[in-house]
Amino acid sequence: MSVKEKLQANYENMVEIRRHLHMYPELSFKEVNTPKLIAEKLRSFGIEVKENVGGNGVVGRLEGAYDGPTIAFRADFDALPIQDEKEVPYKSKVDGVSHACGHDIHTAALLGLAKSLADNHDALHGNIVFIHQFAEEVVPGGAKAMVEAGCLEGVDYVYGSHVSSWSELGTVLFCEGYAMAAADFFELTIQGKGGHGASPHETIDPIVAAAQFVFGVQPIVSRNTDPIESAVITIGKIESGTVGNVIPDKAHLTGTVRTFNPAIRDMVEQKLNNLCKAIEIQYGAKLEFNYTRGYDAVYNHPAETAMLREAVSINLPDLQVLNAPPRMGAEDFTYYLQEKPGTFFFTGGGNKEIEAVYPHHHPKFDVDEQSMLNIANVFVEALKLHGVVK
Amino acid sequence: MSVKEKLQANYENMVEIRRHLHMYPELSFKEVNTPKLIAEKLRSFGIEVKENVGGNGVVGRLEGAYDGPTIAFRADFDALPIQDEKEVPYKSKVDGVSHACGHDIHTAALLGLAKSLADNHDALHGNIVFIHQFAEEVVPGGAKAMVEAGCLEGVDYVYGSHVSSWSELGTVLFCEGYAMAAADFFELTIQGKGGHGASPHETIDPIVAAAQFVFGVQPIVSRNTDPIESAVITIGKIESGTVGNVIPDKAHLTGTVRTFNPAIRDMVEQKLNNLCKAIEIQYGAKLEFNYTRGYDAVYNHPAETAMLREAVSINLPDLQVLNAPPRMGAEDFTYYLQEKPGTFFFTGGGNKEIEAVYPHHHPKFDVDEQSMLNIANVFVEALKLHGVVK
Amino acid sequence: MSVKEKLQANYENMVEIRRHLHMYPELSFKEVNTPKLIAEKLRSFGIEVKENVGGNGVVGRLEGAYDGPTIAFRADFDALPIQDEKEVPYKSKVDGVSHACGHDIHTAALLGLAKSLADNHDALHGNIVFIHQFAEEVVPGGAKAMVEAGCLEGVDYVYGSHVSSWSELGTVLFCEGYAMAAADFFELTIQGKGGHGASPHETIDPIVAAAQFVFGVQPIVSRNTDPIESAVITIGKIESGTVGNVIPDKAHLTGTVRTFNPAIRDMVEQKLNNLCKAIEIQYGAKLEFNYTRGYDAVYNHPAETAMLREAVSINLPDLQVLNAPPRMGAEDFTYYLQEKPGTFFFTGGGNKEIEAVYPHHHPKFDVDEQSMLNIANVFVEALKLHGVVK
Amino acid sequence: MSVKEKLQANYENMVEIRRHLHMYPELSFKEVNTPKLIAEKLRSFGIEVKENVGGNGVVGRLEGAYDGPTIAFRADFDALPIQDEKEVPYKSKVDGVSHACGHDIHTAALLGLAKSLADNHDALHGNIVFIHQFAEEVVPGGAKAMVEAGCLEGVDYVYGSHVSSWSELGTVLFCEGYAMAAADFFELTIQGKGGHGASPHETIDPIVAAAQFVFGVQPIVSRNTDPIESAVITIGKIESGTVGNVIPDKAHLTGTVRTFNPAIRDMVEQKLNNLCKAIEIQYGAKLEFNYTRGYDAVYNHPAETAMLREAVSINLPDLQVLNAPPRMGAEDFTYYLQEKPGTFFFTGGGNKEIEAVYPHHHPKFDVDEQSMLNIANVFVEALKLHGVVK
Repeated sequence: MSVKEKLQANYENMVEIRRHLHMYPELSFKEVNTPKLIAEKLRSFGIEVKENVGGNGVVGRLEGAYDGPTIAFRADFDALPIQDEKEVPYKSKVDGVSHACGHDIHTAALLGLAKSLADNHDALHGNIVFIHQFAEEVVPGGAKAMVEAGCLEGVDYVYGSHVSSWSELGTVLFCEGYAMAAADFFELTIQGKGGHGASPHETIDPIVAAAQFVFGVQPIVSRNTDPIESAVITIGKIESGTVGNVIPDKAHLTGTVRTFNPAIRDMVEQKLNNLCKAIEIQYGAKLEFNYTRGYDAVYNHPAETAMLREAVSINLPDLQVLNAPPRMGAEDFTYYLQEKPGTFFFTGGGNKEIEAVYPHHHPKFDVDEQSMLNIANVFVEALKLHGVVK
Repeated sequence: MSVKEKLQANYENMVEIRRHLHMYPELSFKEVNTPKLIAEKLRSFGIEVKENVGGNGVVGRLEGAYDGPTIAFRADFDALPIQDEKEVPYKSKVDGVSHACGHDIHTAALLGLAKSLADNHDALHGNIVFIHQFAEEVVPGGAKAMVEAGCLEGVDYVYGSHVSSWSELGTVLFCEGYAMAAADFFELTIQGKGGHGASPHETIDPIVAAAQFVFGVQPIVSRNTDPIESAVITIGKIESGTVGNVIPDKAHLTGTVRTFNPAIRDMVEQKLNNLCKAIEIQYGAKLEFNYTRGYDAVYNHPAETAMLREAVSINLPDLQVLNAPPRMGAEDFTYYLQEKPGTFFFTGGGNKEIEAVYPHHHPKFDVDEQSMLNIANVFVEALKLHGVVK
Repeated sequence: MSVKEKLQANYENMVEIRRHLHMYPELSFKEVNTPKLIAEKLRSFGIEVKENVGGNGVVGRLEGAYDGPTIAFRADFDALPIQDEKEVPYKSKVDGVSHACGHDIHTAALLGLAKSLADNHDALHGNIVFIHQFAEEVVPGGAKAMVEAGCLEGVDYVYGSHVSSWSELGTVLFCEGYAMAAADFFELTIQGKGGHGASPHETIDPIVAAAQFVFGVQPIVSRNTDPIESAVITIGKIESGTVGNVIPDKAHLTGTVRTFNPAIRDMVEQKLNNLCKAIEIQYGAKLEFNYTRGYDAVYNHPAETAMLREAVSINLPDLQVLNAPPRMGAEDFTYYLQEKPGTFFFTGGGNKEIEAVYPHHHPKFDVDEQSMLNIANVFVEALKLHGVVK
Repeated sequence: MSVKEKLQANYENMVEIRRHLHMYPELSFKEVNTPKLIAEKLRSFGIEVKENVGGNGVVGRLEGAYDGPTIAFRADFDALPIQDEKEVPYKSKVDGVSHACGHDIHTAALLGLAKSLADNHDALHGNIVFIHQFAEEVVPGGAKAMVEAGCLEGVDYVYGSHVSSWSELGTVLFCEGYAMAAADFFELTIQGKGGHGASPHETIDPIVAAAQFVFGVQPIVSRNTDPIESAVITIGKIESGTVGNVIPDKAHLTGTVRTFNPAIRDMVEQKLNNLCKAIEIQYGAKLEFNYTRGYDAVYNHPAETAMLREAVSINLPDLQVLNAPPRMGAEDFTYYLQEKPGTFFFTGGGNKEIEAVYPHHHPKFDVDEQSMLNIANVFVEALKLHGVVK
């Protein structure tokens, strides 16, 4: 039986695991039972397991019978602080927590693949590493810690996928190069000097300084960013003052910065700092600016991406291969790709018939479970690409 | 006994009345006992009284024995929603309400003058109208309603004063022409279109539009206002959004406009409306702008002001006469001066020795009660000026 | 014969002198024949003369027969680089130069007064100083140098007037306190980094930085200046770039600042410097900002102004006394008033019937010569005020 | 002899033609001798020729012996109003005009290819169209007119190349999708109302309105443009006023807009118009805004681009195939690709050893003539791709 056939045979089991995880979701950095379950399952397949890798991470390693490269696959397993509002038998049993982003799908798909490969390890020309990652949803994330703990040691290539309700079941989406944005955050407090609204000359008006900040960020995007690159600076919140005739003491602003190219990210951070210094000098206000870096941008290695896309096109004709435009969302899969070549692709899970139509992080989010087979089958193509599976 | 001597003799009585009012303050438009007390007092002096003039107003009229002009004096009597935090025997007994602006002083001073003049009515060459006004603190104020109710009918000149903790006891401050500002208010809601912080192109960002409003108001003052005139546009409050990575739907701003010259006031209102229309067109947002006119600017008639100042300088050598620069605060005394010539002056009541040092509207505000005599004596000078008192 | 009658008798002579000066105007700092003529005239009246005072200035001194204060009058005598386009017999004979501001009027009026007083010196209780000033039109002006050269030594009061085509013949305009503005100038060069219009990220765009400067100056007026004071910051010229698709290297801006209060003048200069520093930091451009102070604001001493106004009102009933609002134009008469009490008033010279309707500095500027008598008569009132003329 | 060998054999002839064109350059829309020469050459090869196609265009058509698709190649032949400052034997003999962009290279390469193919027409399975285009440098360009005149009738695919001094000889650069920008231009006149610099309230200051325009364009790029798309709005020139103390009447601005996606181009034009309307309302100025569309963006058909790139990679191993990022420059080759599939690629011509290092449009611009062979050889690959050449 081919790995593909094994996967099909294991499908019911994958669904069972996924639904169990869905009913018992655990928040980022607070995963206890999920990694325990994963470790048990992997061991039950005869796969060597390390637990508590970099925190709550689980890493399985399957040695093939023959020499060959080592390929890693990653599935994240944390859930979100979102109430499950679906009416399904596998609805979350944990109040206020749910797998509203599909990480249960990733985990069950990878466990299904692990079982199928373990059964076939006699035929493998190389080794496979199963990275079950905790805490993808919350910065600083689990990926960095797991990499630092050595989960990529000896690994030659690394692959991952995210199921997507925004793309139909049966699609697979690839993006060469920058695929997901670096997502940073900032907070700004402008300390002016309050006073009577009729005596502006006795004050340092923080609202005028805040408006200058809002306008000052625009040319950073429109003039300082290479037009064929990308940058977004959004101020999502501004707050100052209580009544119309009193000039307030302070203004608070918070925002987010999205970029792909690290040089542009550095430039934006630098220019924002300069802008704050400029406003201090111009207005005599005191600005406290805190810039927090989130995950780096995900950069898919062009060669591996192109090869996997082509392999899927040819070998999995039931799947529809699409080009994914870069997305401004963030992923800590970047930290694996910073170490090893590979790619991160999207696997469609949308299906109107089963109401799998809600966006990620929506209380009614769901995907078609068949997407698990698609993820696993594309992973198998990666193994074939590198000669591990013949 | 001269009127001045009578006033001195009545001083203890004025203090008593003032302290009673201070202990039982009543909020604007909710004055019940205060006007009743005033009416009783005036009647007890033998003065003809009208109650409920334009609302809670009280108007007394004293006919002189001889023909002559009719002079009106005004004292306001409403209190503020401010907790009295002074430690004095006459501390407010009403929780959260106090005479923190000195209207009790005005009232007691005018009643003291009324008594003194009533005693001397045989010698008066003309008539005196005592306007006891309700609700000066809250727009639309009582002045307009009392004028509309006819309190100035037959009046030839009108005078008023405000006690001031910011000027020492013994000072009297005059200002020719515009003396206090028109104080208007505005509220602005910018209805944009919210969305993800990484997708500004799918939104109408109300925070950028709000910044444009803040910047757009500056040239109205700096370029459209005659440099030897005055205008202030303050945005005292801005509020939009909840988190850094979501572009909000709406922004709210509130502010105040202060002007003297009515043409500039009209210009500012017009330009603010134009600015809102411009922002709608530029950003595709929907702006709801509400501009509310407060009191008109107080314009002191130059001739009457100059004459009274000169009379005080010569005849009341114990008082120090000062020039008051125009003040950006508001007063509904303007509505009397729009009908009749006269002036509104400030009477110093500051005194460090008795801790009368706090600004108006401060929980510990107080003034030296001797200021009542000074107010009344300057009013007497006005009567002499017009020949009513010889 | 009273001084007033003498003046009337001298009127034809004053007209003759004025027309001579008008035909032979001399530019600021290049006055040669004018001061020579003035010195000759003064000497011919029997007045003691110093020439080359502080440059091209001439100072005459007339001692009275009796003790008394010393009063100085000033008339400036320089002309402008403007072509005379009037068709009158006394049209300028110097190509491109004319008395288009009326300084010939001032000079002839003061010489007329000198002759009249010299004839009457037996009756004078005090002394009179005639300050004939060069170079009022061009910074740094002649006043400062003449003061430094001692022209005010022993002087108790100083008076001056400017004839005005914008006010009718017969009017005299007084202004207490700040009457004419300090007029300063600035030049700004923004050194950015040019490049292709399609590659803004490789450049430092000086046009965006220039726009920021233009916007940055507005709050200095609208927020940092006391609303009852005055400040103007005008950028009169901006220039950058040659074609639409090339980002230029540099932008040039020039402008003027007008203020009365020296504290506000200092604040504006300081804030403009800060703004330039802020733009350097924000944009990485290099800004070269040169701020040049012109004449200080003219401050008319309130007491002397009020007294002279009153004296004119009473004693010269043919003249109409008006309040002059402060004017944003500049005058170096300020340097006399910084040393001695006195005032600077405007004397109406407009007259439609003789086409004396053009603004100052206009090629067809002219005034009614009767204004000379009015200036001189008001000066005589000043002498009476101080008891020099009885 | 293969086509490739024929090309090699024709190389000296190509050089001769190129140098002749280089010495006798003709400006856009004024090409007379160049098209005559091209037509003669093509006829001399036995190719059927149409002259004056859409203006000064020349179109040759070579029928193959066998049926097959029709492939068009385009070379432009106009020169630039730039003085040739190179010191080479083939230096331009026309004062102020030169082939500073390499169109002579394109023309000679295509003529060389034509000769080589004509010699081999017995072996061709399909037809070849040689589009020799006039006036690429100046909007509206020759391409549109030639397409309208029918030059693409019966054509199945179209290819073109631009030689590039910025890439080394031996490189070929491909770009899928949008490869060159739409380049539009605008002019803006702001009609304010001039006046004295000290009286801004009597004016409509066009410099403040101009600054608002400069700032107003920034959010169109930074907020209204999808961050993964591109837009540039550059104001390259601003001009207003003559001296610092006079507020001018008018301001002039000119600029350029660069975009790829037509929807974004439309959006930018619309928003710029809205901005102008907004400024009119806000400032009361009158804005005259003229937006002129230049060439559309060049969109390389992905399939043809990918196939040609792959074919070159495999079949022309001496050439280095590179990915070209999209360029913000403009090309009217877009009008061919809007009608037929195909691609436009860059062919390296830089060579330090022969001083071929200057940018395009530089007075010393030159390229290595070997690039002509490379262009022609890649064209041959296109013919092979479509089976015309076996």
